[in-house]
Amino acid sequence: MAYNIAVLPGDGIGPEVMAQALRVLKVVEEKFGFSCNLTEGLIGGAGYDAAGHPLPEETKEICLKSDAVFLGSIGGPKWENLPPELTPELGGLLALRKLLNLYANIRPAVIYEELKEMSPLSERILTDKVDFVTVRELAYGVYFGQPKMLEEDEAFDTMRYRKENVEQIARAAFDIAMKRDKRVTSVDKANVLSSSKLWRRVVEEVAKEYPEVTLNHQYVDNAAMQLMLNPLQYDVILTTNLFGDILSDESAAICGSLGMLPSASYGESISLYEPSGGSAPDIAGKNIANPIAQILSLAMMLESSFNEDAAAKAIRDAVDKAVTGGQRTGDIACGGKSITCSQMGDILCQYI
Amino acid sequence: MAYNIAVLPGDGIGPEVMAQALRVLKVVEEKFGFSCNLTEGLIGGAGYDAAGHPLPEETKEICLKSDAVFLGSIGGPKWENLPPELTPELGGLLALRKLLNLYANIRPAVIYEELKEMSPLSERILTDKVDFVTVRELAYGVYFGQPKMLEEDEAFDTMRYRKENVEQIARAAFDIAMKRDKRVTSVDKANVLSSSKLWRRVVEEVAKEYPEVTLNHQYVDNAAMQLMLNPLQYDVILTTNLFGDILSDESAAICGSLGMLPSASYGESISLYEPSGGSAPDIAGKNIANPIAQILSLAMMLESSFNEDAAAKAIRDAVDKAVTGGQRTGDIACGGKSITCSQMGDILCQYI
Ligand SMILES: CC(C)[C@H](C(=O)O)[C@@H](O)C(=O)O
Ligand SMILES: CC(C)[C@H](C(=O)O)[C@@H](O)C(=O)O
Repeated sequence: MAYNIAVLPGDGIGPEVMAQALRVLKVVEEKFGFSCNLTEGLIGGAGYDAAGHPLPEETKEICLKSDAVFLGSIGGPKWENLPPELTPELGGLLALRKLLNLYANIRPAVIYEELKEMSPLSERILTDKVDFVTVRELAYGVYFGQPKMLEEDEAFDTMRYRKENVEQIARAAFDIAMKRDKRVTSVDKANVLSSSKLWRRVVEEVAKEYPEVTLNHQYVDNAAMQLMLNPLQYDVILTTNLFGDILSDESAAICGSLGMLPSASYGESISLYEPSGGSAPDIAGKNIANPIAQILSLAMMLESSFNEDAAAKAIRDAVDKAVTGGQRTGDIACGGKSITCSQMGDILCQYI
Repeated sequence: MAYNIAVLPGDGIGPEVMAQALRVLKVVEEKFGFSCNLTEGLIGGAGYDAAGHPLPEETKEICLKSDAVFLGSIGGPKWENLPPELTPELGGLLALRKLLNLYANIRPAVIYEELKEMSPLSERILTDKVDFVTVRELAYGVYFGQPKMLEEDEAFDTMRYRKENVEQIARAAFDIAMKRDKRVTSVDKANVLSSSKLWRRVVEEVAKEYPEVTLNHQYVDNAAMQLMLNPLQYDVILTTNLFGDILSDESAAICGSLGMLPSASYGESISLYEPSGGSAPDIAGKNIANPIAQILSLAMMLESSFNEDAAAKAIRDAVDKAVTGGQRTGDIACGGKSITCSQMGDILCQYI
């Protein structure tokens, strides 16, 4: 039995960190006795340059035929001034989210004890280990809500939720909380927005299906503040598409190194896995990028899409060992000695 | 000649910090030779308790007849479960914003060198003085955009901007930048939202009227990150109603003490001044709240509504002197010796 994986390296550092993740995949395939069929596709600027579109037809087909999509990263200054529908972000990533109906974006925020000084937060705030997950609604809300209008003198977007959209994302969050500390913080703006009032009501209904999980609510402005003043309070943050965009980036900033943070985007049948950070065009092609975010995204894929929990755990343990042992790419070296992207790959393969 | 000021102490610590600000006002009136007619009105929970509404008719009249509105703070657990239109927030503050057509919310973010350790950010980030201003659009966007709908199975809000709305707030921001370091960062989500595309285009047009001011754009998710990683980069942040709600609270969190941060909300004829922080019901009535935010809001009023620049400067200088001299209410004492709310009032009156 083999898993079919669509591999989309994308732009910037995407190809080089992807290469290391695929080496790690080879190692765990052998060690844990499963196998993967990899089919590579073009996306983002790479898709535009080679095939005239950031999400070429061929890539769509590869993705739709796969069991999971493994993405590097997209975008860069080269493609910034294209018409919106041809940009890597809108024409590539957002279109792919729509194509696969990805409804939940899962972004863990973790600060390793050894990397505390990478965080912009002071020691006074980081008295314990920051470790929470943001569950962002990804398929609806003001991103995709219709109607939208853009005219010379006026423009609008519609922030729309149906009950079933909220139920679906809320269940995803509560399911995750059941495997963690059983606490969900739902973030909305229910004191002002109608869509947030619906959101809050439906989240409360779904909570009844999970009597073991504690639910509390925060307004988004307060959450933006609390994330800085007391990030330790969170276990699972459940929020809307737009608020999740903002808060998950703030959460990533708290952690200090984007190069360490993976993400998963759940679809109904096919899910997508990618690093939280961007394509970092300034360091692309130099073999100095941190491959850990890509490699931890692989672990999320093995666990969530293929139930290969042991392989996922082996990868995470290897990363822990490397970080604890002082193995550092430039982004997390804090001025100390650093190793290259492929050396980090070597070490992780060896540790597994 | 006398200025007519509507004084709305409101809830929680509102009345006690307002009392200190009014003492300071008396002192500067005498010293700088102007006079004020104060008319007190009920708002928020206080309005609801005494008159059945968080913005009683009488208060509306007082405000509409005034030259400026001086507000304490509103809200508290006691009134949280009222129907939305009767809550202090929606029925009081938001209704007042609408009544006075307050279109720009101005919130300075400043970290005093002496209070650096109050900030949740590490020393590594705070290598220089944080000092920027958020200019938040306050009368339109998804807060007030029509239509809105809330039904059993579906709800939506409309994030709507007209060209003239954006022009008005952009000019407010550029005018402020002209008196500062002449740099504006406009924050939007123009890679996804139609309303943000209009926003960006209009901001660029307005920028042409201010050739001396440098304009750059950030997406809101990036701004939420940059505020933590490099808050020193900002001079004036110009943003929408919803993004401003989130980012100005994040900015306040960066500063570490809400008790120090004033705000102004500009209307076309009548403007409103209030502390950035909340009503802090937990410490209300104990004479331990920090009155500085209220007193600096007074300085903003004297300057912006009445052109009493010398009086405003005297107040700010007194606050600087107090903070530099180690005079601290409990919230900024960092574990050291603290004085009461009214003692801080005494000291500031004396310094002026
Ligand atoms: C690139 C952009 C459209 C995207 C978003 O806003 O969702 C990105 O910021 C993200 O968070 O994945
Ligand atoms: C109380 C609430 C309606 C208000 C807002 O969202 O504007 C508050 O958060 C603020 O920032 O003044």
